[in-house]
Amino acid sequence: MLSSVNISPNHAAGNVDGAAVPVRVGVAGATGFAGRELVRLLARHPFVRLTTAMATGDGRPRRLDGLLHIWDGEVVPLSIEPLIESCEVAVLALPDASAAAVAPALVHAGRRVIDLSGTFRLRQAAERARWYPDADRGEAGDHAVAAEAIAYGLTERRRDQIRTARLIANPGCYPTAALLALEPLAAAGLLDTRADLVIDAKSGVSGAGQAPTDRTHFSSCHGNVAAYGLFEHRHAPEIGQALGRSVTFVPHLVPLDRGILTTIYARVQPGATETRVADTYAAAYAAAPFVRVRGEALPEIRDVAHTNFCDLGWRLDAASGRIVLVACLDNLLKGAAGQAVQNLNVALGFDERAGLAS
Amino acid sequence: MLSSVNISPNHAAGNVDGAAVPVRVGVAGATGFAGRELVRLLARHPFVRLTTAMATGDGRPRRLDGLLHIWDGEVVPLSIEPLIESCEVAVLALPDASAAAVAPALVHAGRRVIDLSGTFRLRQAAERARWYPDADRGEAGDHAVAAEAIAYGLTERRRDQIRTARLIANPGCYPTAALLALEPLAAAGLLDTRADLVIDAKSGVSGAGQAPTDRTHFSSCHGNVAAYGLFEHRHAPEIGQALGRSVTFVPHLVPLDRGILTTIYARVQPGATETRVADTYAAAYAAAPFVRVRGEALPEIRDVAHTNFCDLGWRLDAASGRIVLVACLDNLLKGAAGQAVQNLNVALGFDERAGLAS
Amino acid sequence: MLSSVNISPNHAAGNVDGAAVPVRVGVAGATGFAGRELVRLLARHPFVRLTTAMATGDGRPRRLDGLLHIWDGEVVPLSIEPLIESCEVAVLALPDASAAAVAPALVHAGRRVIDLSGTFRLRQAAERARWYPDADRGEAGDHAVAAEAIAYGLTERRRDQIRTARLIANPGCYPTAALLALEPLAAAGLLDTRADLVIDAKSGVSGAGQAPTDRTHFSSCHGNVAAYGLFEHRHAPEIGQALGRSVTFVPHLVPLDRGILTTIYARVQPGATETRVADTYAAAYAAAPFVRVRGEALPEIRDVAHTNFCDLGWRLDAASGRIVLVACLDNLLKGAAGQAVQNLNVALGFDERAGLAS
Amino acid sequence: MLSSVNISPNHAAGNVDGAAVPVRVGVAGATGFAGRELVRLLARHPFVRLTTAMATGDGRPRRLDGLLHIWDGEVVPLSIEPLIESCEVAVLALPDASAAAVAPALVHAGRRVIDLSGTFRLRQAAERARWYPDADRGEAGDHAVAAEAIAYGLTERRRDQIRTARLIANPGCYPTAALLALEPLAAAGLLDTRADLVIDAKSGVSGAGQAPTDRTHFSSCHGNVAAYGLFEHRHAPEIGQALGRSVTFVPHLVPLDRGILTTIYARVQPGATETRVADTYAAAYAAAPFVRVRGEALPEIRDVAHTNFCDLGWRLDAASGRIVLVACLDNLLKGAAGQAVQNLNVALGFDERAGLAS
Repeated sequence: MLSSVNISPNHAAGNVDGAAVPVRVGVAGATGFAGRELVRLLARHPFVRLTTAMATGDGRPRRLDGLLHIWDGEVVPLSIEPLIESCEVAVLALPDASAAAVAPALVHAGRRVIDLSGTFRLRQAAERARWYPDADRGEAGDHAVAAEAIAYGLTERRRDQIRTARLIANPGCYPTAALLALEPLAAAGLLDTRADLVIDAKSGVSGAGQAPTDRTHFSSCHGNVAAYGLFEHRHAPEIGQALGRSVTFVPHLVPLDRGILTTIYARVQPGATETRVADTYAAAYAAAPFVRVRGEALPEIRDVAHTNFCDLGWRLDAASGRIVLVACLDNLLKGAAGQAVQNLNVALGFDERAGLAS
Repeated sequence: MLSSVNISPNHAAGNVDGAAVPVRVGVAGATGFAGRELVRLLARHPFVRLTTAMATGDGRPRRLDGLLHIWDGEVVPLSIEPLIESCEVAVLALPDASAAAVAPALVHAGRRVIDLSGTFRLRQAAERARWYPDADRGEAGDHAVAAEAIAYGLTERRRDQIRTARLIANPGCYPTAALLALEPLAAAGLLDTRADLVIDAKSGVSGAGQAPTDRTHFSSCHGNVAAYGLFEHRHAPEIGQALGRSVTFVPHLVPLDRGILTTIYARVQPGATETRVADTYAAAYAAAPFVRVRGEALPEIRDVAHTNFCDLGWRLDAASGRIVLVACLDNLLKGAAGQAVQNLNVALGFDERAGLAS
Repeated sequence: MLSSVNISPNHAAGNVDGAAVPVRVGVAGATGFAGRELVRLLARHPFVRLTTAMATGDGRPRRLDGLLHIWDGEVVPLSIEPLIESCEVAVLALPDASAAAVAPALVHAGRRVIDLSGTFRLRQAAERARWYPDADRGEAGDHAVAAEAIAYGLTERRRDQIRTARLIANPGCYPTAALLALEPLAAAGLLDTRADLVIDAKSGVSGAGQAPTDRTHFSSCHGNVAAYGLFEHRHAPEIGQALGRSVTFVPHLVPLDRGILTTIYARVQPGATETRVADTYAAAYAAAPFVRVRGEALPEIRDVAHTNFCDLGWRLDAASGRIVLVACLDNLLKGAAGQAVQNLNVALGFDERAGLAS
Repeated sequence: MLSSVNISPNHAAGNVDGAAVPVRVGVAGATGFAGRELVRLLARHPFVRLTTAMATGDGRPRRLDGLLHIWDGEVVPLSIEPLIESCEVAVLALPDASAAAVAPALVHAGRRVIDLSGTFRLRQAAERARWYPDADRGEAGDHAVAAEAIAYGLTERRRDQIRTARLIANPGCYPTAALLALEPLAAAGLLDTRADLVIDAKSGVSGAGQAPTDRTHFSSCHGNVAAYGLFEHRHAPEIGQALGRSVTFVPHLVPLDRGILTTIYARVQPGATETRVADTYAAAYAAAPFVRVRGEALPEIRDVAHTNFCDLGWRLDAASGRIVLVACLDNLLKGAAGQAVQNLNVALGFDERAGLAS
């Protein structure tokens, strides 16, 4: 069991007589699914003051009715200068192209940025051009964000980079689940690198975004399961980059709102016993408040929905060396807004759990 | 128990050596939810040949992929002359304004029409103008459809009119459930006409139509219930017209795809016993293959989904005279396409169940 | 907007050098749906220490796997003496008969009790005997709980009684929604008391409890809506007691897990305008952090699920005097565990929101 | 497009003056999910008379309320002698042990049997003993069913054996989907037999059976996805037997009622082009009314629910040789009762589609 849930800031800056001055944080992209979760979390974060919430759209200020009594401010049109003025840290939940335009200006102005788009996740320019052709990161210009200023924000696996980064590229929802399951085994050399790595993910419909389409119509999803994005989903190269190998990744839409369950099929190296697997996970996540290692008690979405947890389980068939990993999380929290706040906490030296009780 | 499910046409016309010549039927509006059900039912109807399926839209022929191997034809752009040429009976599942434009021309050309829109349901011009302002039925012109040529197609309650009508105005999904429950009691004088009549309906999301909107987004509906249309839903005057009184009608969207369950709150006249209520329903629906009178075994949507049944139940509190009626049906079948086929069967003298086994 | 979300205890007792000593709280009935929510909330409550979690059942200690990292203690078999020893306040989420046996002993031992069962809600013995025949409250014995020591825990409407009560009878989920909507209008004399009061409620399946039955099987509920308990649900007299009149109450199961939406049909007194209705609600809930008065923006379950909010809306048809009220809440939070914690906060002088951010 | 949907029996036996005498069929296990579908289908089958419906259980006759007006008979207690007397063909939807006891007696009495249990699917005694330890097929006794009298009823792939078999072992729901996708490619030598074969299946909850358990509780399934049966599900050896190789099979419960979508990960042999794959499927299912080959238009459950179709699609990554197959069906129809009726049609020489329009 982790120690007490009492949470306090441990960063020195801003302390006046023992009371922390809240950090000013702005959200851009506040009306999408992830954006609203950001507003909800940051409005109640003990060490943060949510100073502005902006959104692209028709330009009229609007309220977030569901957040009445939680955050009663107005969402205003996205505008870079006012955003820079209003915050020390900006959290972006914008479309890729908007993020590509906004983030460099913020970094250049000395703001720290946590970006939930895919724009800054892939390190190689060729990969970016292929998978994010519309996201011009201004790489040739004065406002380019230097590669070394960017951290890939898979919190539990990149804390050191996150602490010092100017821009944190928050991972995709699918890569978060897949990599929290795979990285420890891969790092320990327990996986047979010659065998195929198959990642079959099942996602709730909120993962498809807020735009009403034929695909997101209730009658299309209810009572339905559909595979999509075979051999062409942008999260496959993101997973592959972290693992240094190609993977077969197939996401599916399942009829629920929030949550991802990912089933991963691999083979272990000879001699990789159940005990070694268990020890590897236990060591990897001993100090991780939001990763719950459940072993043979396979995780299920219902235990992680509406939380920032990622739960991990597995079964190893010792005779054949086949291993099946199961990871699950809430795509809007640990897969998006929750991990963003967790990264903000790490970046600012707060307790990693601050503001994430819910 | 009803007699055998063997089905055969009993209309003389068209018989050649004992084998019926199928009636040519066209569907206009074949790509919406109700339209696709019409195609599915008519493609397998034993006494019908589906000659054409048309739709408004972008003008490109398209296939109904889900109906592969059931009906493999192409849906073509809506066009009145080809529709007239192709059919003896046209079934329209069009927007109100389109139906208003198409139906009179079909009737004028001697075709029988079954119209699923609301355009022809309300008898009084003032009511039509208020509730269907966009549906110009050409009432002043040569192609007007005479009121006496129109039947309100609540099958079990209007068979005589349906047999002879040129245009059958298929009832709304909500009115079908409400009126099948209420009309027998009202006709028998069992309801206290001074007491409020409250109709609280719960509908699956397919009832909101196929257009992707914020309201029909999966994430808006899943885990949600929402009331809508209070004091302003067009099905309230439709119910009121049949009953000759005003009603309080509130529909709700519930997170399922197909089905309506309607709970009706009324008071009975003094002396209206449980036995009289039961006898009234039994008599009303003795010969109705698709109305199942279930009494105290309250009906539930799961028993009627994907069928053409309307199930009815009730509870009477004898001491107080309060009665609660529960009616349910599949909004796309008994509430739309199924009842349309049932009406087609009645209009053409077929067995009422023909083509409606599923 | 309510003031700051900073929360601090304002009860003097227990302060040592400015730091509050947490109040020791025990939960009995920790493995049911409401019980697990209690554990989740109390484990993170800033002014409380959850000292024990007990449950009836097979007697073996067990863990609440879904709450791993939130509360990692063991749930132990229910036993009165250890419960008395472990806590200053006991929260009971037990079956009625168990609550009837346990609560008086706790009160007699000087513990404050918040009881989520129905045992202590009805004031009249005849009503209790009718609706809770199995719940012997020991009324004839030494351990009886005096009526004046019991408060009906509808927080926003009974704060004064809750502050001083020894036993708080937490309201039922349905009555909470219905009464928060109805009591202000009734108290203001705005309702026509001669007209029928119809309460049509739609509840998620968690409201049916954790026992696996035919009724709670997924395949029974998915795609289904079912009315139940007509004229025989125990929440009807609970609502009636608070309003001083009889009501027609029909609950329905709808295919979602958490949440209740209640639609209420009434008539207002002549002269009861929209403005008076709005002013009445605004005044009633001006200082209520968990009741959101939404007026014509009718509330929906998705905005209250996983929160302690109760949202209220209405539509008044001025011409006819008919009014429709809509109330919704999360049945496990504001309808059970959340309101229990809210009552605990009121009873102990804490900020009413403490521990209820999520 | 397949030819006309007109369906007529082509078996000579039983014809009297051109009218077929219906075949007498009995159902044992009529109250489970699959059993009720059997009753529904057989009650309306044009060439069959459903003579009896039996069930294990408490011994009291009961009605199938949801089938009112479709089949109004009583379900009576299971009893072998009356079953033998009542039917020419018996369809069994019984628990494994019951099927093992009943089927041999029926075969011995000259009845043809279609068995939906797993008892008769595995050919090797050692496999049966391991996976079905409780199902004693009486193999040592007089009533043993000879192996050569048993056909594995994967209709489209075993029509010849089905025509002559005395006992048809209806395949499991998961194997039906997996094998209809895999067998044609395997038979054509297109699969790389050295690569792992990963079968990730997503099933609706009706697949878990009708018994109310913690696992099938609505609140356990709603908003949830769960993997189960890793390395220990009985359908894995069933699939492996048909393919002659081991497979990795992981089923998941997803929050819908009816339907399975199976995603299969394999590698093709060098030179196995998209065209060869497409041609192979087209040839395999050219004459199959219930298999719809959809190619790159990946199938989805909503298109097959409430039908007897199995839809197949795939994507081949030519560069790497990885192929992903997607198959889906309704687990209670093509995965159980529908395929049983299809097998009955084949066994008796009827049109394969008879009674399966819905």
